[in-house]
Amino acid sequence: MSAPGSDPGLEVFLRHGGRLAAATLAFPNAPGPWLDLSTGINPRPWKGARATPVELARLPDPEAVAALEAAAARAFGVSPDRVAAVPGAEAGLRALPRLLGARSVAVVSPTYGGHAEAWRLAGARVETICADQIAATAAEAVVVVNPNNPDGARRDDIAAGDRWMIVDESFVETAPELSVATRAGGRLIVLRSFGKFYGLAGVRLGFIVAEPGLAARVSAQFGDWPVSAEAIAAGTSAYADAAWRERTFRRLFRDSARLDRMLTAAGFEVLGGTSLFRLTASPDAQSRFARLAEQGVLTRPFPEQPTWLRFGLPKTWPRLAAALEAL
Amino acid sequence: MSAPGSDPGLEVFLRHGGRLAAATLAFPNAPGPWLDLSTGINPRPWKGARATPVELARLPDPEAVAALEAAAARAFGVSPDRVAAVPGAEAGLRALPRLLGARSVAVVSPTYGGHAEAWRLAGARVETICADQIAATAAEAVVVVNPNNPDGARRDDIAAGDRWMIVDESFVETAPELSVATRAGGRLIVLRSFGKFYGLAGVRLGFIVAEPGLAARVSAQFGDWPVSAEAIAAGTSAYADAAWRERTFRRLFRDSARLDRMLTAAGFEVLGGTSLFRLTASPDAQSRFARLAEQGVLTRPFPEQPTWLRFGLPKTWPRLAAALEAL
Repeated sequence: MSAPGSDPGLEVFLRHGGRLAAATLAFPNAPGPWLDLSTGINPRPWKGARATPVELARLPDPEAVAALEAAAARAFGVSPDRVAAVPGAEAGLRALPRLLGARSVAVVSPTYGGHAEAWRLAGARVETICADQIAATAAEAVVVVNPNNPDGARRDDIAAGDRWMIVDESFVETAPELSVATRAGGRLIVLRSFGKFYGLAGVRLGFIVAEPGLAARVSAQFGDWPVSAEAIAAGTSAYADAAWRERTFRRLFRDSARLDRMLTAAGFEVLGGTSLFRLTASPDAQSRFARLAEQGVLTRPFPEQPTWLRFGLPKTWPRLAAALEAL
Repeated sequence: MSAPGSDPGLEVFLRHGGRLAAATLAFPNAPGPWLDLSTGINPRPWKGARATPVELARLPDPEAVAALEAAAARAFGVSPDRVAAVPGAEAGLRALPRLLGARSVAVVSPTYGGHAEAWRLAGARVETICADQIAATAAEAVVVVNPNNPDGARRDDIAAGDRWMIVDESFVETAPELSVATRAGGRLIVLRSFGKFYGLAGVRLGFIVAEPGLAARVSAQFGDWPVSAEAIAAGTSAYADAAWRERTFRRLFRDSARLDRMLTAAGFEVLGGTSLFRLTASPDAQSRFARLAEQGVLTRPFPEQPTWLRFGLPKTWPRLAAALEAL
C-alpha cells in the first residue's frame, strides 16, 4: 500500500517533489497543466529507443541486462562486474541497509531524506552529521550525496576506509569530475541514477557500483530480471550516447544560469544547487510557494527550513517568468 | 552485475526459461525467430494503455501508484491497504526473507527455484518438503506455489496459522478458485504476478498481499516510486478489464487442451501444469529438448529431472506442430 496525501496542505509537498495530483487538490484554481519544478529531473529527456511490444511481453533476457550494465559501466568508467542494475536508485538505496547489515549510519545532512528513512526502517541507529564530522563519527556506515541535494554542496575529499562509505551520485552527471565511481570497491559504494540527468524518472532505473562480490549480492537481491524492458531499451542506448551527454551537460549549465538570473531578479537568494535544480532562500518562501502554485507552478518547500524553495529547470521559460513577475 | 551464461550447454537453460540469447549461441543453426515455449507467459498479451512520453519522464505520482494498487486489489477481491506493488513478483519474493526475519523456511517442492535461493541468500535454513509435510515442519516460514510451477499441483487446504505462510499465486488467474488472497493477513502472505497471465513480463510488476502493516513495510522497502510508469499504465487498465480476464481464462483453457493433444500425439506424457504451461515426461526428454531447439523451439528442461520438459503455449501452432512431427 502506498500512502498518498489525503491532506491537501503544505505537508504533502515537504516529503518529495512531483506530487501533481496533490497539487491539483490543494490548488484547484491553478491554471493547468502544471509547470512542475518540484523535482531535479531534466525537462528535456533523452529521446531514443523504447521497448517494443515483443520486449514488453517477454521476461528480459539476462544477456540484455548484462548489456545494459556494460553500457552503464562504460559511461561510469568502471568494469561491468562492479555494476548492478536496480529498479530505480531509490530501490537500490533502500536495499543497502539490510544487505550491508551495518547497525548505525551517519548521514551527511541536510540531504535527501530517503537515506535516513531507509536505515531507520532497517532498524539502524541514524545520526545526521555535518560534512566535517565524517572522520569523527563512530557510525559503521556513512552516507553522503555528492553533489548534494538540495544545496549542491560538493565533496572532493571522499575516501574509502574501513567503514561503509555510500556515495549517492544521483546528480553527478552535472559535475562528473566529482565522481568516485572508478574507486568503488572495498567498503566504498556508489549509487547512480538514470532518470534525473536523462529525464526519464518514470522508467525506474538506477545502479549500485561496488566490489564485484557485493554487486553480485545486490543483483541477487532483485533477481534475474531486476529492471524492465523499457529500462533496458532506454538505458542501454542512452548511456552509449556520449554526444548527447556532453551537449546536455552544457545546456543544463546554461539553463541553470538563466534560472539563477530570473530567481535573483524576483528577490530570491540563490544558495546553491546543481544544474538540475537551484536552492533559494527568501523570508516569505512558504507564501511564495503558494502564490506560485496558484499560478500552476509547483516548487519544492522543505520541512524545518521555512525560507527555502527549490526550483527545477522549466522546459520553457515564459510561464515561469510571468509567475515570478506576479509574485 | 548479472551472470549471463557463457556456457552454451544445457546448464544455462536449467535455471530459468526465456534465455533466447543463450539459445542462439547454443543452437546457431536454429531457424529464427525462436518460438519461445520455455516460460509460462501468455503469448497473447493484454493490449492497451502504454505510458506516455510525459509519464516516462516524470517520477510516478504516488496517487497513480495508489490507483494501480486499488485496481489490483479490486481484481484480487481485497482492500487496497493490503496490497503493495513491487517491481516484479521476483523482487517481491526476494525482499520477504529479510523483511520477515524468519531464520528457517520450508519450501513445498519441487517448485520454482527462486524461493529457496532467496531465503538461502538471506541466511535462512532452507528445507524442501512435500505438501503433506506442511503441518509437521518446524520451520518458521512455509512457501507454497499454488497452483504449482512446474507440475500444476493445486492446494485447496491452505490455512493461516502461527507461522509465516507465503502463498505464491503467480499462476492463480488460471485457477482463480484456489486464491487465498481474500484471507491474506496475520501471518498469511500472498504473492501475485502481473506479467504471466497478462503476457507482459517485461513490464516487471507484482504485488504482495498482506496485513496492512506488513504491506506498508513492503512498500517502504521499495520507496515511493516502486514501479515504472509503464507498469502503472498497463496494470491499472488491465486489472480493471474483467471482460478480457474472463475471455483469456477460457482461451488459455482451450489452448492448453489443444497443446496436450499435440504433446500426447508426439509421445509425451502430460504430467500436469496450468493453462499457461504443461509439464511432460519422456524418456529421451533431454535429446528432445535439443532436437526441438535445433528447429527453433525453446522449451524448459529441469535439473535433477532429466525426463521432464515444460511447454508454454505457442502464439501460433503450425511451427510447433511441424517441430513435434519431426521428433
